[in-house]
Order: sequence, then C-alpha cells, then structure tokens
Amino acid sequence: MTDVTRQLAAFAVETDYGALPEPVRREGPRAFLNWLGCCLGGARDPAMAAAMAAFAQLGEAPQASVLGRGRRLDMASAALLNCMASSLNAFDDTHLESVIHPTGPVAGALLALAERRPVGGRDFLAALLVGIEVECRVANMLTRPPAECDVGLYMTGIVGGIGAAAGAGRLLGLDCQRMIWALGIAAAQAGGFRELHPTMCLGFVPGNGARSGLMAALLAEQGLTGADTALEGPRGFAHVLAHPPNLEAAVAGLGTQYEVLGNAYKPYPCGIVIHPAIDACLDLAEAHRIAPDAIEHIALEVHPLTLVLCDRPKPNNRNEALVSLYHWVAAAFVDRAAGLAQSRDARVRDPALARIRARTKAQGNERLGRDEVKARVTLADGRVLDAHVAHARGSLQRPMSDSDLEAKFRGQAQGVLAAECLDRLVELCWRIESSADVGGDIRRAVEGRAVEGRAVEG
Amino acid sequence: MTDVTRQLAAFAVETDYGALPEPVRREGPRAFLNWLGCCLGGARDPAMAAAMAAFAQLGEAPQASVLGRGRRLDMASAALLNCMASSLNAFDDTHLESVIHPTGPVAGALLALAERRPVGGRDFLAALLVGIEVECRVANMLTRPPAECDVGLYMTGIVGGIGAAAGAGRLLGLDCQRMIWALGIAAAQAGGFRELHPTMCLGFVPGNGARSGLMAALLAEQGLTGADTALEGPRGFAHVLAHPPNLEAAVAGLGTQYEVLGNAYKPYPCGIVIHPAIDACLDLAEAHRIAPDAIEHIALEVHPLTLVLCDRPKPNNRNEALVSLYHWVAAAFVDRAAGLAQSRDARVRDPALARIRARTKAQGNERLGRDEVKARVTLADGRVLDAHVAHARGSLQRPMSDSDLEAKFRGQAQGVLAAECLDRLVELCWRIESSADVGGDIRRAVEGRAVEGRAVEG
Repeated sequence: MTDVTRQLAAFAVETDYGALPEPVRREGPRAFLNWLGCCLGGARDPAMAAAMAAFAQLGEAPQASVLGRGRRLDMASAALLNCMASSLNAFDDTHLESVIHPTGPVAGALLALAERRPVGGRDFLAALLVGIEVECRVANMLTRPPAECDVGLYMTGIVGGIGAAAGAGRLLGLDCQRMIWALGIAAAQAGGFRELHPTMCLGFVPGNGARSGLMAALLAEQGLTGADTALEGPRGFAHVLAHPPNLEAAVAGLGTQYEVLGNAYKPYPCGIVIHPAIDACLDLAEAHRIAPDAIEHIALEVHPLTLVLCDRPKPNNRNEALVSLYHWVAAAFVDRAAGLAQSRDARVRDPALARIRARTKAQGNERLGRDEVKARVTLADGRVLDAHVAHARGSLQRPMSDSDLEAKFRGQAQGVLAAECLDRLVELCWRIESSADVGGDIRRAVEGRAVEGRAVEG
Repeated sequence: MTDVTRQLAAFAVETDYGALPEPVRREGPRAFLNWLGCCLGGARDPAMAAAMAAFAQLGEAPQASVLGRGRRLDMASAALLNCMASSLNAFDDTHLESVIHPTGPVAGALLALAERRPVGGRDFLAALLVGIEVECRVANMLTRPPAECDVGLYMTGIVGGIGAAAGAGRLLGLDCQRMIWALGIAAAQAGGFRELHPTMCLGFVPGNGARSGLMAALLAEQGLTGADTALEGPRGFAHVLAHPPNLEAAVAGLGTQYEVLGNAYKPYPCGIVIHPAIDACLDLAEAHRIAPDAIEHIALEVHPLTLVLCDRPKPNNRNEALVSLYHWVAAAFVDRAAGLAQSRDARVRDPALARIRARTKAQGNERLGRDEVKARVTLADGRVLDAHVAHARGSLQRPMSDSDLEAKFRGQAQGVLAAECLDRLVELCWRIESSADVGGDIRRAVEGRAVEGRAVEG
C-alpha cells in the first residue's frame, strides 16, 4: 500500500521554497492576486451577508479580516468567509485535470492564520504552494483514471480542507507526524455535493474546507491524533470515495512535477466548462455584428463533461445561471460580454436572454478537448456562421497574463474598496516575497477602506 | 422521486411534543441522562485537552459550557467538544439498525444553543427527539437493504450533523423552507471515515457533526440557501453515499413509527458489536471462577458484523482497544469487569490480557443475531465450558432500566463533578419536562463544581 498520507505530509513539511522551480514560484503571487480579487468580488453577495450574520453569533473575536466587509471575526470563521466569497461568483481558478478550484481553501486558511502571527512572504508562498499541490494531488487520486468517483461529489469541498491543512500546518511548523494527523483530521471533515451547486452553498462548501483545514492543523498542533493511513487505508478517504482510487496519482513525481502548473485562472465568472462556448459566441457576435433578434438557432458541440456539469437550459436565478451553459451563450449574444454584470438575477430573468437560451442546443462530442468548442449560428436571413475555438481563453495554451490578472482583480475590487487601496494590494501581491508580515500588510491595506457597503443587487 | 428533504423538514418543524407516544417521550430524559454521563466520563480524556486548546484559540467567547472542564467557549466549539467527550469512550448509545450513536451530535448542538437563550424542557425534548428521529432515518436511507454504502463511512459523522440541524432548527423555530436549507447545509458538511476510528478522531468526528448541524441551522435562519432536494436529488447526499440509497426508509412511517425506540444505551464502553461476547465471558468467568492462567483457548461465534468492525487482535492503545473484540474478552476474564477502568492504556498493555487475546479466535456466523454470541472456553485441565447469549445486556430485549442508567451516569460523573452536583443533574434529567430553562439549569448545576482537573491517565 502506497503511504500517501506520509509522503504528502513529508512533502508539505520539507519542501524548500527557494528550491522550487521558477515557473512554480511565479504562480504563487498570481494565484494570490487572483484569489484576493475574487474575495472582493464576492464580498457583497447576499450569501455573505447571511453567513456573516450567522458566524458573528459565535462571539466576534476580532482576529482576522473578512475582506471587503470592514469587519474581523475569529480566524476559523474568517477563513471560511473569505474562501466562500472567493468561490461565490465561480470566477476563481481551476485545476484542469481534476476540475477543482484549489486556491480558495488554502489561501483562506493561510490569510486568517497570517493575521494571528507575522508570516514572511516566502513562508506564506511556500505554504500556499504546498497546500495547492497536496490538494490537487489528492483530487487526482480520486479522479485520474482508472480512479472513478461519483460525479455528485463537490470535489473542491472534498479535497479543499486537506490542502488547507497542509498549508496551515506548514505555517504552524508542524513536524511530519503532526502533519500526518492534520491531513487525516481534515479528511475526516471532507464533504459536499453538487446538488447544492446552484445554491448559496456553492460558496459555503469550499469555505467550509478552508475552516476545517485550518482547524485540522491547529488540532494536530495540540496533539489530536489521526491515522497514519488516513488517506490510503482500506477504510480511509480514498477507498471510500473512489472505486478504485488511484493512489499512485497522489505521489507520482511529487517534488519534481507541480500541479499548480496545470491550474488556470478564469476569465469568465461561471463554470469553466462553459468558457470555450463563451469565447466562440463573443467572437461570432462581434465579428458579424449579430443582432440577438436575428438569431434563429444556435448549435454547439462541446466536450461531454460540459453537459454533465452545466446542461441547465432554464436557470431560475443567478446561482443556477453560474452552472448554465445556455445562460452564458445568451449573454454573449445579447450583452456581448460575460462578466459579473451578466450573472445578476436581472440578466437571468431578461426575456431577451430567455429567447436565445430556448434556441440553443448543445451536444457532446468525445473528440473535442475540454477547452474546445464548435458553434454554428443560423440567422433568420438564412446565413449560417461557424466558429471553432481550439483552446479557450484562460486555458493553459492561452493563459491569463499578469496584466490580465491585474485587470480582473480591479474589475472585481473596484466599488468594494477605495481606489488607492487597489493599487496597494496589487503592489503587495507582486512584491509579496519581500513582505515581512503578509497578514498585517493585507489588513493595513484594507482596514477602513471598504466603500460604503451596498449589497450586490440580486 | 420521494421528497425526503421536505418530508423530514416538515416533520421536524411540525411535530407536536404532547402528541408523541408516551414510550417515545420516555426516551427523551433517558437519552439525555445517558448522554450527560458520557460527556462527563470523556471530559478528562487527553483528546479533550488537545481539542480544548485548539478551539480556545478562536477567542474564548464564554457562550456555552464544556461539561466537566469548568470552562465556557463559543457555542459551536462547545457543541463539538461536549459531543466529542460523549463519544470518546464509545460508551454512549446505538441505533441498532444503522449502528449510529444518535444522541451525541443532537444533544451537543441543543445544549450549546440552550445556553444562549432560555429553552423550556418540553421544547428541548421535542428538539432532541425530532433530531434523533431525522438522524436515524437518514442513516436508514443509507444502510437499510437494498441500500448499500461503504463500510468505511463513519456513519455517526455522516448523519449526525443532519440530526443536529433538525434539532437546532427546531429550537430556533425555523419555518419549513429554512429547515430544508438547514438539512442541506448540514448534509454538505457530512464526513468521516472508519480508518480514523482507533484514533482521537473517534470523538472528534461526531463532535464535528454537532458543530456543523448547529451552524447549518444558524446559517439557514439567516437565509443561506440549500437545495430542496439536498438529500434525495441525483447528485445529493443519498445517491452519492449509497448505491443505491433506500429513499423510502427515510420517510416510511414518519410520524407514526419512531426510531428512538430502536436506540439502546450501552452497558460497556466499547463497540456495541462486542457486547454479547463480554456478557458471555463475564458470565463464564464468574460462574466457573475461571483463573485467567487456566485458559487454554477461547472460541467465539459472532455475527459477521462484529468482525467487520472489531476484528483487531492486537490493539496498541486505548483507542484501538475500544474497537477490539479480543481486548474485551481478555479484560472480562482477567479483570472480571468491562468498564472505563478496562479501557485505559495500562490495561491494554498488560501481558495478562495479551496472553488471553492471543488465545482467542472468533468466527462469523450469519445465523446469529447482532446481539448474540456463542462462546466456548477450553481450560488447561481439559474442561470445555460453553455459553450462549441470545440477547446482550442493553439490547432491546434486555434494555437498561432507569436505575441502570442512573448508575452508569454516576459511574462516569463521579470524580469529575462534586458529589452533590451528580444528584442535582440526575434530578434535573428526570424532571426535565418541567424545566423553564434547560441550558441555564445545567450550567448552574455544573458551574464551579468540577473536581480539581486531573487528566485521565493514558
């Protein structure tokens, strides 16, 4: 039996930041900037107001900032809430092999912990990168063939806490035995189902991963024991959730190959399997100046996974629209845009979008890549227009540049924090390696800078 | 599709305490007294010290008592810690059909909430009983044939939060829609694996259920949405965890048949499938005055589930011993007792017990009941002694009486709380229906009454 728990724990404890390959280190600040923007973009969501009100009932120990809310809570609640905010718009990032959104749970736990004690930039980045690595590898263990697991598992919720525990345990300086316990205590709290995707739990589930991973590390630090075989044992995480699991996928190339290099930052705020279709429709709408009323029919060929996850022809609200292929196709043609403005309830209810949704049909094609689409639009005047996107924007072949990420950050953060604060946070991210106190720097940058809190309109 | 989530939510919201059958109402105070004793019996466990130290780092808002620790914490942490304490000695209760331990997660959540606002005795008992009912039915949905689910699931962790949410939601007065959300938010946090059974997570996992169920109810109260089909939907709780689930089992006879009537209180602090063997060995040892050294061989026939769960011939520590059939057989012959004293590390390490363990063999017999055993002891002098226990002590056929439960409570609580406090708590439980403020009454009974805190020896 491969000793997955021990090998991942040793990796998390022993990895030397300076020895990481440069392309891996480069992803640390990029992932963190992308995440901060998503936190701020989600901070005013109605789901955040509900969750804040519930967690504030636990006593409001002002330990860690809830970004964009102008308030501090205990560090476990803050970890949850920041990760939740970053997940609510489905705008975060995606480990393409396993389709998890890895940064949220790890960064949520780390930032909360880094407000409790000064943490230098390199230590913070090391913890972030080992947390993401462990998280993605645990996801691969459940999803890389021959592994099979139920499509109903909300995979970021299932593995997020384990990544967060690895990262938080690294910040706490756990030894290898305690890191093993931390991974097991986190695995013991892993949960989440896709049935809850089109609800406010879309954000709550990953958020709960951030919280549970942080607590797992704190509990292991105090000596709460877990099993040495928590992940790989016959009655452990992998064998219960996957039939069979792929234990080798968790450790193959560990320390030489890095999963963060397969992590993509989203250009559009919705399920990533929708993105190639958005690209194609935006291109067609723009190139041919198509008026929405002129559209007779839209036919899409997509990777089959797109339909498994996002075949939702009639979304009723914003949460359902986030995982509706048809909503975003319609928005691309009606609004010629696919940003946060397109995910408001008002857009979902617009009859102009409903008309296009009803005229859109999609079918799966095994031969297409996950980031590929073929689109054919038939117009009322008889014209037939075709588009083929081989690799969606934001994919590994067409990655978001640093300036793309900066623009994405500003697009989400403006209106939430004062303008001068945005510059400071961007600067902080690009220079994070030289920070002596990441949590303190972030706190000082955002404190008192929240723009007068208006909830996002439903 | 059976609307399981809605039906269970409606049951939790609408059940009229006064209309519950008398035998059902009778189990409320019994379950609560049994649970309080188990809390106190586990309060000084080393696992509790570790967990207290971690949760106290969240700010120590003194909202709710951690029983037997002389300390209050925020209500979510207190819910977790009290349920954890009650689970750590495997001495609590068992819903015999699903083999979950139902009272802990529900009572943990309710007591914490009842310290935040006055709750009358009948309201408290109603919430306790509907929480237990929902919890057991959700477990039946995963385990009653033709349902099949992985034996590695730590079932109390999987369903405990859902029961706790039903109970806490009832206390909060949630309407049916919010109760539906609460059940879904709790389901989204369900987790736990048997691989962690022989570790301190034995207690942590159910404890986390208490916490997550309480938070689910508080979150739903504030408007955090879950799915109407969280439990039964194609990508929801039941279909992901069981293949197939038994949706009908969740709702058949709801409101007329009560699962709490199939809940048994443990006479021995270990896995319940071990209990018939303990009975047989204690009987043999006593009746024939067998000296441990005189034993040549012990042969047991047990229900196959006993070996699935507790076939652990060489336990290394107390946590492993709690789920070792062989440890308790040995203790019964060497100590002629099977109480908390027998689950200490020192007993596990005793060579006299190791000698008996090594001479014990067990085999599964499909024709035996789960609470049945056949034991044959061969002595060095050639004598062969047989025993057959048809129904173990504590089973539904030989239930623990009220005075058995009171003695069990006192056995666990003495040495943890001052003597006069024990009387007061017992009195409180038997008269709980007339309490105007259950949480306040409990708090006043235990406050400042902890016997000078000495940790239990490992």
